[in-house]
Amino acid sequence: MQKSKKPSDSLTVMTNMVLPNETNHLGNMFGGELLARMDRAASIAGTRHSGNVVVTASVNHVSFSKSIPEGGIVVLEAKVSRAFSTSMEVYVDVWLDDPINQEKVYTNSGIYTFVAVDENGKPVRIPGLEPETELEIERFAAAQRRKELSLILSGRMKPTDSIELKKLFLGE
Amino acid sequence: MQKSKKPSDSLTVMTNMVLPNETNHLGNMFGGELLARMDRAASIAGTRHSGNVVVTASVNHVSFSKSIPEGGIVVLEAKVSRAFSTSMEVYVDVWLDDPINQEKVYTNSGIYTFVAVDENGKPVRIPGLEPETELEIERFAAAQRRKELSLILSGRMKPTDSIELKKLFLGE
Amino acid sequence: MQKSKKPSDSLTVMTNMVLPNETNHLGNMFGGELLARMDRAASIAGTRHSGNVVVTASVNHVSFSKSIPEGGIVVLEAKVSRAFSTSMEVYVDVWLDDPINQEKVYTNSGIYTFVAVDENGKPVRIPGLEPETELEIERFAAAQRRKELSLILSGRMKPTDSIELKKLFLGE
Amino acid sequence: MQKSKKPSDSLTVMTNMVLPNETNHLGNMFGGELLARMDRAASIAGTRHSGNVVVTASVNHVSFSKSIPEGGIVVLEAKVSRAFSTSMEVYVDVWLDDPINQEKVYTNSGIYTFVAVDENGKPVRIPGLEPETELEIERFAAAQRRKELSLILSGRMKPTDSIELKKLFLGE
Amino acid sequence: MQKSKKPSDSLTVMTNMVLPNETNHLGNMFGGELLARMDRAASIAGTRHSGNVVVTASVNHVSFSKSIPEGGIVVLEAKVSRAFSTSMEVYVDVWLDDPINQEKVYTNSGIYTFVAVDENGKPVRIPGLEPETELEIERFAAAQRRKELSLILSGRMKPTDSIELKKLFLGE
Amino acid sequence: MQKSKKPSDSLTVMTNMVLPNETNHLGNMFGGELLARMDRAASIAGTRHSGNVVVTASVNHVSFSKSIPEGGIVVLEAKVSRAFSTSMEVYVDVWLDDPINQEKVYTNSGIYTFVAVDENGKPVRIPGLEPETELEIERFAAAQRRKELSLILSGRMKPTDSIELKKLFLGE
Repeated sequence: MQKSKKPSDSLTVMTNMVLPNETNHLGNMFGGELLARMDRAASIAGTRHSGNVVVTASVNHVSFSKSIPEGGIVVLEAKVSRAFSTSMEVYVDVWLDDPINQEKVYTNSGIYTFVAVDENGKPVRIPGLEPETELEIERFAAAQRRKELSLILSGRMKPTDSIELKKLFLGE
Repeated sequence: MQKSKKPSDSLTVMTNMVLPNETNHLGNMFGGELLARMDRAASIAGTRHSGNVVVTASVNHVSFSKSIPEGGIVVLEAKVSRAFSTSMEVYVDVWLDDPINQEKVYTNSGIYTFVAVDENGKPVRIPGLEPETELEIERFAAAQRRKELSLILSGRMKPTDSIELKKLFLGE
Repeated sequence: MQKSKKPSDSLTVMTNMVLPNETNHLGNMFGGELLARMDRAASIAGTRHSGNVVVTASVNHVSFSKSIPEGGIVVLEAKVSRAFSTSMEVYVDVWLDDPINQEKVYTNSGIYTFVAVDENGKPVRIPGLEPETELEIERFAAAQRRKELSLILSGRMKPTDSIELKKLFLGE
Repeated sequence: MQKSKKPSDSLTVMTNMVLPNETNHLGNMFGGELLARMDRAASIAGTRHSGNVVVTASVNHVSFSKSIPEGGIVVLEAKVSRAFSTSMEVYVDVWLDDPINQEKVYTNSGIYTFVAVDENGKPVRIPGLEPETELEIERFAAAQRRKELSLILSGRMKPTDSIELKKLFLGE
Repeated sequence: MQKSKKPSDSLTVMTNMVLPNETNHLGNMFGGELLARMDRAASIAGTRHSGNVVVTASVNHVSFSKSIPEGGIVVLEAKVSRAFSTSMEVYVDVWLDDPINQEKVYTNSGIYTFVAVDENGKPVRIPGLEPETELEIERFAAAQRRKELSLILSGRMKPTDSIELKKLFLGE
Repeated sequence: MQKSKKPSDSLTVMTNMVLPNETNHLGNMFGGELLARMDRAASIAGTRHSGNVVVTASVNHVSFSKSIPEGGIVVLEAKVSRAFSTSMEVYVDVWLDDPINQEKVYTNSGIYTFVAVDENGKPVRIPGLEPETELEIERFAAAQRRKELSLILSGRMKPTDSIELKKLFLGE
């Protein structure tokens, strides 16, 4: 049996500038290009946790509230937030760092699910995860609700069969 | 007041091959690269509906169940599925077309929300949407539930205040 | 023997924005970049008609009369216009769609010839083509003249041996 | 009045490897990508001759007879072959250089027409061209026939009004 | 007068995979592509230290001893190693991280010099640097020797005028 | 034994424009992108001299004194400057050509070292080099000093063991 890992073991930091080809008419980064960068950072974090090649299974709902300009310095931090048997959830936090105006603003986050696979593309078991910080523990707990929601949205679970989500909507 | 439009008015078809730089170790398309392509197709559909520049506000949960190989022909079809006052929901359907083996398989879909903005980046009102086909009518209706869910997930609505979603989870 | 196909069977629509890296000093799309996009759309159409991998054999004379700005929405429609034994002619029509100013202008067309090949790169027979619309019938007929011209320009036919072209220049 | 220039004054050599993103399934360069490279080399040659920004007006018929593999070293040589009042014809010769097997093969050529423009995009007069070598003189002469053909193909000249081409097809 | 900063204030971590377009025939990363990535990481570190836009003034001698395969995870860590009046030296350390085989190997380092400039491109004064760790202190000291060497190599100092380097070669 | 070659046998000219994705905030080419281009030109020159695949072993100190704007025409000329047993030094000279203002300015040079390898990545012997022009002879001689310096900088030779460099710093 594989030894559990900590979220910090998979921490992946990806700092880079926004290039012209990633921006729209208004000179701001396309939402989709940010999603693509986040997917890469998250897949590296997933590889670090699992010790295997990983493939993206899904991405959770992502909101874009701040615009990110061409040339802006974007910092992504990806960490595994919960490990299931062959899949894992990876949380990606995004900041826009503007050292010239001395501002570093949190822009958004994304939650990706990856499956670890062997050389034939078949799912393989992965180590468990032991969250340490308060935020890691909170995200670990919320991952179960997200998993239920994901199963419901993909039609593999009936809403009325969920336990965690039902509670949420009933306010119990 | 602006005249309503039909979903077919914004239909955007984007057919293209998967390039080496978009693929991972296993020679399959990165999930994030597909999300980026879908965002571009969806934003063109949003521009066609609104007659304005649009910016991505959010992307809904997306699952990736089929792998898409390098060189594969990917067909994206994006259409506005519901218009709100200044924002709209765009549905993107994705197929992998393999004319050599005479197979065309549906791989997945993504639902994006865009806001139409003027030259200063301020939201502007957009035309209404009148769905026509059965599928368009069904997606139009579901869009309201997705909007509630989005507001809840971004913390701008309390789960217990939702009407549509509460019904869903209570099975009423 | 393979069943004939219609031009609409190979219709390939490729809609996309013009990215900064595809533009020159004046902020307009390089002619060569447009030719490269057209080649990709045309090769997908050729693959759809032939059911085989295709390689570009030649591109016909192409004029560029309208400039296409960065961020512009370019719509390419490619369809097989005539099938010969192992090669086929593909017509690509190009529009610049500007939904903000509600203009969609035809910018130009290109005519590509592709050869269908097997896994060893050897030419293979392809289905015939049955044009349907008036425009398809006209392009089908003109394809014979273009083939003669192509043979002459590549030195594989003497101008005085052509039948169709001689008529054209003599005005008979 | 501007002093005439020689073809060698605009000679532009562009040597580079073929990158993975420029290749198809069979690992060979897309015809369209080669056209795009040729357009860039030709536009630099046109800028050197005219001393102005240039825009692509047309590309002549181009045949692709040799496949160019990924990683192959491609050598492009572009030179102005004839100058008209505000436009000029640029000839691009292409070789595949394989120093490991000590082979350098001529793969194909392309003929582009460019218009020189001022900062407002209006055509400006350009220097004349004085060909020197036998090949340059031959290409200079043929350019007149190509210009007629181009006018005919774009519908701006009636075939029966051409002088050079009529001769060609009548074999006089 | 500006307050001094620590090397850790400018630490920039750039983790990313090697893409096909960055690799040669043997499937390994081009040395030049790695230099380009290192330049970006270093320029972000320089911006963080100076609070200004920076431009690359020079790159020191860089050796490449390990090959980095396509798909490999490359980790770059850039930190300012010494600040002069308007320029600064940035040290970039590079690792190849292979979590599947549980190996993380140091591949090489690069030393870049940047100049901080204002919006007109004119050099501006930057904060001093206070190294903390043993390695930072060692690199800080060596920076003076490298600066002398750089001045000599660019012909702005005579070898016999150097103090630090003369000592080095004389073994005093 | 292999016949010697001349520097002109490996001359590689790479002319191209600077694309938006290669430029920074100020609209000027990143130093690192220029280094990457130079590496490609140099590796082609190295392949031409050796008749084998080559891999970058090191790049010498490079200074950037002139800024190169987006759209600028950059001319690189690479030539082998000295051959050792299995490695060779390649000199790359860079010019910014501005035909509109009729200026061609020398911007900088870079010196790369490559090792020729067989299909298993093992070093192979390469032909000798016979410099012809005054500049080629001068660079050939200086290459020995650079090799010593490189060995010292990588810790494979002690400064006090160098012969050429000691002379330089002692002014003998």
